[in-house]
Amino acid sequence: MTHPVPALSSADPLSGLIASRRPGWTLPQPFFTDPAIHRADLDRVWRTGWLFACHSCELRGPGDYQLVEVDTDSVIVVRGEDGSLRALHNVCRHRGSAICDEPRGHVSKLVCPYHQWAYGLDGRLLAWRGMQPELKKEDFSLRSVHLREVGGLVFIHLAADPSPFDGAEACLAPLLRPQGLLRAKVAKSVDYLVKADWKIVWENNRECYHCDAGHPQYIRANFDHYNSGDTPPLVRTQMEAAVARGEAKWAADGLAPTHRETGMTRFPDAGRGIWYSGNRTPLVEGWVSESMDGRQVAPLMGDYREADVGTLRMRALPNFWNHSSCDHAVTTRLLPAGPQRTAIRVWWLVHEDAVEGRDYELAQLMPFWQLTSDQDWVICERQQRGINSSAYEPGPYSTSKEYNVEGFVRWYLERMKHNA
Amino acid sequence: MTHPVPALSSADPLSGLIASRRPGWTLPQPFFTDPAIHRADLDRVWRTGWLFACHSCELRGPGDYQLVEVDTDSVIVVRGEDGSLRALHNVCRHRGSAICDEPRGHVSKLVCPYHQWAYGLDGRLLAWRGMQPELKKEDFSLRSVHLREVGGLVFIHLAADPSPFDGAEACLAPLLRPQGLLRAKVAKSVDYLVKADWKIVWENNRECYHCDAGHPQYIRANFDHYNSGDTPPLVRTQMEAAVARGEAKWAADGLAPTHRETGMTRFPDAGRGIWYSGNRTPLVEGWVSESMDGRQVAPLMGDYREADVGTLRMRALPNFWNHSSCDHAVTTRLLPAGPQRTAIRVWWLVHEDAVEGRDYELAQLMPFWQLTSDQDWVICERQQRGINSSAYEPGPYSTSKEYNVEGFVRWYLERMKHNA
Amino acid sequence: MTHPVPALSSADPLSGLIASRRPGWTLPQPFFTDPAIHRADLDRVWRTGWLFACHSCELRGPGDYQLVEVDTDSVIVVRGEDGSLRALHNVCRHRGSAICDEPRGHVSKLVCPYHQWAYGLDGRLLAWRGMQPELKKEDFSLRSVHLREVGGLVFIHLAADPSPFDGAEACLAPLLRPQGLLRAKVAKSVDYLVKADWKIVWENNRECYHCDAGHPQYIRANFDHYNSGDTPPLVRTQMEAAVARGEAKWAADGLAPTHRETGMTRFPDAGRGIWYSGNRTPLVEGWVSESMDGRQVAPLMGDYREADVGTLRMRALPNFWNHSSCDHAVTTRLLPAGPQRTAIRVWWLVHEDAVEGRDYELAQLMPFWQLTSDQDWVICERQQRGINSSAYEPGPYSTSKEYNVEGFVRWYLERMKHNA
Repeated sequence: MTHPVPALSSADPLSGLIASRRPGWTLPQPFFTDPAIHRADLDRVWRTGWLFACHSCELRGPGDYQLVEVDTDSVIVVRGEDGSLRALHNVCRHRGSAICDEPRGHVSKLVCPYHQWAYGLDGRLLAWRGMQPELKKEDFSLRSVHLREVGGLVFIHLAADPSPFDGAEACLAPLLRPQGLLRAKVAKSVDYLVKADWKIVWENNRECYHCDAGHPQYIRANFDHYNSGDTPPLVRTQMEAAVARGEAKWAADGLAPTHRETGMTRFPDAGRGIWYSGNRTPLVEGWVSESMDGRQVAPLMGDYREADVGTLRMRALPNFWNHSSCDHAVTTRLLPAGPQRTAIRVWWLVHEDAVEGRDYELAQLMPFWQLTSDQDWVICERQQRGINSSAYEPGPYSTSKEYNVEGFVRWYLERMKHNA
Repeated sequence: MTHPVPALSSADPLSGLIASRRPGWTLPQPFFTDPAIHRADLDRVWRTGWLFACHSCELRGPGDYQLVEVDTDSVIVVRGEDGSLRALHNVCRHRGSAICDEPRGHVSKLVCPYHQWAYGLDGRLLAWRGMQPELKKEDFSLRSVHLREVGGLVFIHLAADPSPFDGAEACLAPLLRPQGLLRAKVAKSVDYLVKADWKIVWENNRECYHCDAGHPQYIRANFDHYNSGDTPPLVRTQMEAAVARGEAKWAADGLAPTHRETGMTRFPDAGRGIWYSGNRTPLVEGWVSESMDGRQVAPLMGDYREADVGTLRMRALPNFWNHSSCDHAVTTRLLPAGPQRTAIRVWWLVHEDAVEGRDYELAQLMPFWQLTSDQDWVICERQQRGINSSAYEPGPYSTSKEYNVEGFVRWYLERMKHNA
Repeated sequence: MTHPVPALSSADPLSGLIASRRPGWTLPQPFFTDPAIHRADLDRVWRTGWLFACHSCELRGPGDYQLVEVDTDSVIVVRGEDGSLRALHNVCRHRGSAICDEPRGHVSKLVCPYHQWAYGLDGRLLAWRGMQPELKKEDFSLRSVHLREVGGLVFIHLAADPSPFDGAEACLAPLLRPQGLLRAKVAKSVDYLVKADWKIVWENNRECYHCDAGHPQYIRANFDHYNSGDTPPLVRTQMEAAVARGEAKWAADGLAPTHRETGMTRFPDAGRGIWYSGNRTPLVEGWVSESMDGRQVAPLMGDYREADVGTLRMRALPNFWNHSSCDHAVTTRLLPAGPQRTAIRVWWLVHEDAVEGRDYELAQLMPFWQLTSDQDWVICERQQRGINSSAYEPGPYSTSKEYNVEGFVRWYLERMKHNA
């Protein structure tokens, strides 16, 4: 790979490369191919931001835990005796052994399988044997990881001094409240290993320019693939009717359409450092759920009293997005898995009382987003292959259709500069 | 790996290593093991030379294409509406996605599967949608790759300013004419991934010192494994008879034996920078084809009117050789596939009108060169394993049997110096 | 990986990292994760020390050979015409090809399969063909590797000028004599590829702090898991009785218990550079063999005239340990296999006259150490995973239970400094 790295003008060895990016055009090749950039992405983006970990409903009782693997770090997210969630590094303070092997499970204590050092669910070292008395147990708690929860979503932050979360909470909490993710259950989750840099996955997520050909089932339900410049009058009328319908019906429940135009809502906002957002968006008439035929596929969730509530959409950089319909919620989580590799998990959630086979069928619940996911991962891997070529050079974004991709790139470069 | 790198005497960081090679002896270890040398090989040899891509008969009509993967580059070789072949980088000018997924196929246009930017078979951007009018389509053609065709063989050159091809054309065109590769078809191709540096594969190809033990079936047909110093009088007589027979019989067809001695013809010629050559060589009496029993295994190709035409042999550095008998042709193509890995394809071609099962059987057509290939790849991988040892040190070439290996090494080092 | 590398104070780039290690605490992360440290381990430890290769009984007659793969080097250990063992690099002096492919076998000469250069079993070049007369065969012997044998154990040394072996011989020869490994045979060997640095494997081997939970079958037979501070009076009494029993019964055979306390014998001794040791240790009453139920599982070996001889235990850094009972011996050999990878072979040996199915059953012979091995490799891989975390920081060793782990680390760092 030949790196078009200009002479360095500052202490940051990447500053020249960062500065070489032409606004409105795709990133230079090394951002997608160079292991050193991948390392910098981990240090400057992933280890300085809030990462979606899992849903709090996955950890119902004290001792329920789940592992989250971020790069070489393994983090235990566990519910304590006091009912609150905590995140702890899965590294014994004795010889450094991992403590939990299984990706999820239940424990009464966190006991290292090597020499049985025993930690409480809050990470405090409770018992060891054979250690000299001059050492003090209180110096050997499991190292903790910052954790915040909002409306059933669990986020962690790997840095010692985390960036603010309050803005995200203020934004997402009211949007999440009616969806009832705290009273949800996971119907299914699927893991993917995608051979593409995580930024390629986000760039794919941030535009619906590819939806016409790429997601034939998705565009039947949504208006995202139209933009101000190419929305036919009929579609504009439909969209306006959908918004009006939402305003009329949802008001009684305190809901409101917050995205009122075709095309994707603007996100992220690099200028103001906004890494989270959410909105309630109308669906095409006749669609009450992001299912293959638009019909409800599970019991109503949360506070919903009727099906026609559009979709709640949320996203948080660098690793989370969610589309929630009246009856189910679909979460996507990205985790870096080495250069040109992204580990992706997709969850389908339904009301906690819903019973498979009686209240819902996976064959009806899953295809809409499983197809969309599969289609996107193929696209992302193909783009990575092309970008790896010596012939790759940055290309232009459509200003009408890829404004959010440009927004993502700006946000990313801002992080790279800010955390250099 | 310990690198015996002497102090640098010039701007090229490899110049000391290159200079440390003792003439007549094998290359120092790093040339076979160091990823930095592999990178230099790509930059100084593979990206500065003509590479055999495929046979033009594989792409019969407009829109027929084949991918050639060189290092991280994917090149589309495609026949245009005008009937001529072109080579284009398989990288969309928008977001860099690969365009073609399948290794071969037929297309009417080259449409990027991501956002449907549509290119003509000549690489010109024909259509995009949603892009701002201030951008001009003519600035976004697919990046082209130089292509030359001679007698049915397609070569490409990845550099912007390619080295001359005319000498190769002048040499190979008349030799190729009677073989009729333009009117051939591929009976079969086989792909191999050999765990050895590409230079090890070439060094193996450039001597028949290993043939006695290594290729028991090959030496029944050929005289290569004898050399001036060890050709028994009987064999010398046979060779002379074969040459005389060729001179007598082939003259009417304008053919002539161009290699008249036992042993391999001299190639390459580093002193004069000759990277291609070809010759017509007699086979052992009784052999009219490089088949297991020497008998014809397919209909006559090209202009041949009788079977006894010896073999046409051609080779072009860094990645092509071919042995053609009266009835079939066998091509071998090397492509680098990372340090200590070489991707090799072997093709068997017959007359385009020949019908499998009626005119030829793969079981008769393939074994001679399939065995030879398999035997050589095992040898090459074994040599790579040995060279990886800390105990490896350069050893001496036989001046009577490995003169062409020395010639190859000189040619290679000349390239490495010249393109530093 | 962030490396807490202090400013360099000497010519050795690792000296700062080495000096940063806090005595009594585990090694800093890079020692377990950094490929450059792995390289230094190879150069400073593995290539400067005696390595256990195999058992001499595996190579009974002239021409019997075995390959030992150390890093990228392949070494042929072969018995010569004169009955003595030699070690030779498996690299032909011509083009560097490996000579032997199979991991073990029988040859009359060492003939390179590429061009048939033929070497004697002592490595001298006997025959080549086609080479120019000005080259002399005596300059092209296979490069030899130092080899020493003691009591049926074969050690090799890759350096030109090996470190002393006489101390090891003086220590181990008398201990080995009654065990009769020269008159043994391999009943079974098993190969493992463990995803952990070799030092993690040794640290695991050097303490029995993990045995209570980790090796439930092992602790039924042995006293290792007790230490001076935690041996209950009853166990102390049992140990004393076992020692007294050994003294009384073994004296007639010239044997003696050489480890008379619970807990592990001290090894290694970094201060005096001792890399080998051995001792005869009593087993728990009722146990005469390290088998699942403590009963004899094969005929008596060597000079033993009764079963109750405790266990002979030996170890040699960096790659060997052995536990021998009256009836069988179990050897473990480590070989580095890249960063965070260790290739491990475990051998079970019995008397050479023992016949499987008649005199012993693998199902009785193997489980005790196969379980112990499997349990340890799981532990080691889990520790490697934990150490890879950014949250890993050195932890304290138990002074009463991990004194030998501290001893190993000191020995290792001494090697790293001494051979810088």
